[in-house]
Amino acid sequence: MMKRRELLRGAGLAAVATGLAACTPREQGAAAGVSAERLQWKMVTSWPTNFPGLGTGAAKLAEMITTATGGRLTVKVYGAGELVPAFEVFDAVSRGTAEMGHSAAYYWKGKAAAAPFFCAVPFGLNAQEMNGWLYSGGGLELWRELYAPFGLVPFPAGNTGVQMAGWFRKPLESLADLKGLKMRIPGLGGEVMARVGAAPVNVPGGEIFSALQSGAIDAAEWVGPYNDLAFGLHRAAKNCYYPGWQEPGPTLECMINRAAFEALPADLKAIVEACCRALNDAMLAEYTARNQQALDALVREHGVQLRQLPDDVMLALRKASDKVLEEVAASDPMARRALDSMRAFQAQAKAWHAVSEEAYYATRG
Amino acid sequence: MMKRRELLRGAGLAAVATGLAACTPREQGAAAGVSAERLQWKMVTSWPTNFPGLGTGAAKLAEMITTATGGRLTVKVYGAGELVPAFEVFDAVSRGTAEMGHSAAYYWKGKAAAAPFFCAVPFGLNAQEMNGWLYSGGGLELWRELYAPFGLVPFPAGNTGVQMAGWFRKPLESLADLKGLKMRIPGLGGEVMARVGAAPVNVPGGEIFSALQSGAIDAAEWVGPYNDLAFGLHRAAKNCYYPGWQEPGPTLECMINRAAFEALPADLKAIVEACCRALNDAMLAEYTARNQQALDALVREHGVQLRQLPDDVMLALRKASDKVLEEVAASDPMARRALDSMRAFQAQAKAWHAVSEEAYYATRG
Repeated sequence: MMKRRELLRGAGLAAVATGLAACTPREQGAAAGVSAERLQWKMVTSWPTNFPGLGTGAAKLAEMITTATGGRLTVKVYGAGELVPAFEVFDAVSRGTAEMGHSAAYYWKGKAAAAPFFCAVPFGLNAQEMNGWLYSGGGLELWRELYAPFGLVPFPAGNTGVQMAGWFRKPLESLADLKGLKMRIPGLGGEVMARVGAAPVNVPGGEIFSALQSGAIDAAEWVGPYNDLAFGLHRAAKNCYYPGWQEPGPTLECMINRAAFEALPADLKAIVEACCRALNDAMLAEYTARNQQALDALVREHGVQLRQLPDDVMLALRKASDKVLEEVAASDPMARRALDSMRAFQAQAKAWHAVSEEAYYATRG
Repeated sequence: MMKRRELLRGAGLAAVATGLAACTPREQGAAAGVSAERLQWKMVTSWPTNFPGLGTGAAKLAEMITTATGGRLTVKVYGAGELVPAFEVFDAVSRGTAEMGHSAAYYWKGKAAAAPFFCAVPFGLNAQEMNGWLYSGGGLELWRELYAPFGLVPFPAGNTGVQMAGWFRKPLESLADLKGLKMRIPGLGGEVMARVGAAPVNVPGGEIFSALQSGAIDAAEWVGPYNDLAFGLHRAAKNCYYPGWQEPGPTLECMINRAAFEALPADLKAIVEACCRALNDAMLAEYTARNQQALDALVREHGVQLRQLPDDVMLALRKASDKVLEEVAASDPMARRALDSMRAFQAQAKAWHAVSEEAYYATRG
């Protein structure tokens, strides 16, 4: 029989082991200054899985978050249609079917008239200017306010840079050729196209080729050479027009279910935010590096005709854009605030870029 | 006197408490899947503490890392001269005096001839193109290779966008006015200035105003309106020239001591990388949003003359730049590889931006 001292020591050792085992991950994490709760999130997207730039961007975001959190927050990506259809991302994240979504705000103009301002506006801001407005010009605060009633927190998470004006089965000689033209073009660009006589439709990226190929539509804009080549749009239409007046610097979005985001400890919130911002930087770099390679291939190997939009078309589009933006703003207080804020920023950015980016392009030779 | 069962229970409870206390942070962290070791890093910089854009950018990076790691990696920022002088950041991080540095690679051309390619090259890449080249065009791999022998790992961590050509005490009427002109201009821009007859010098940002004010130098380029206004350069010279041919999109750098970086667990490495990239995005947004406001103030309130560089000056600078770049490349194998890689990327980017960014600026109106 053990003496009392020995008994205590033995019981103590056993209990130390018990004590260690009784450290739940949450308690251990708290003691270490970090949450050790393991979370698994779903990210629904509007893109085909691993589609270049967009889908791979969403995958990169998920991977960055998973790695940077040491697996405390694991994100699994779902391509368009895998968990929800491309255009139900907003609702799915809003109701919590998925904690995260990667998409483009202009798809949600039917839910919130101001939504397109946070993606792309015809004749609006380019990528560098969108980032300036969103992060340092009050844009993101407006966007957060717009999405709050839906239980969503938006983060800028990617940009394609200036897009192309689109693919046309027949060359566009003048404004008259737009009459009755069935064109896939979403967002406010679509509204503008309607004003100049075209018939805009929206279909998810993954369905554009077959619509164009079958003749269900006469024209389509998707993104630019890098993405358009991947979808093979040149096999359905040979005339590729520039510049992308309708999407001069579209911001992609990562939207997060507010309750899920608010439940994160401060360090995980900061990681998610930094990773979204890192993707915002990464995606534009990728498009900048890949577009010309694809454009070269399209023109040299696939017989694509690269054409600039006729002057009368551009002029008509610009006038119609001004009207559409004013009407959207007149119809909705948040759209009014978004347009006014964006316009004020654009006036500044335009003046600055006249003596910096534009002047540099002109003199670089 | 307690019975044995009671004794055991009491000892057990005490020991559970002991056991919890005996969970060292490292053990707890390991159990939670994250390292709980607490590290404190120093970040030395080439900027005055909290100088707009550059110094505040360094501070933001430190704060992002500290928050996203939940304090497991705390970064303390030192302004130029606080721990080491502005131009000793490279050596200080190389030898481990500080684990991190925030600076600009072209300051180190005396240590590695290729260094300026990873910051700014006359008539080279703008900000969007630098990001494309570094991240998606092979540039960063070359930069990592260049810094490896110094025990440093570089990360792009900020960009100012196209800068200004500089402040001149007297108007610049023609190329002849550059003869003998003493000008603060670092990097390869300084070498080019020497070829066209000027006398370039480099002084840290914080010393430019007094040098210009005293007449020790006749001209100076620093960054652009946002930063130049903060230093009051307009009080020493009234003629502000554009565009910044010498720094069309300078990348700022975060350099990390290799041994310190390698010792980090995978999650902290990923956090540091994501935060550098987030700052890379954030800084350009800030300059894009702030430059015109500052330029307005300079022109409207401070009587600054905003002028474009004369054509003959631009032509001479471009020719001299081509020569300088070729000579640097001929003198050093890494510089050769960097120039060739950058030039190939620039040819692609220029073709793409002709039908995207440039064409858009031209038609936006």
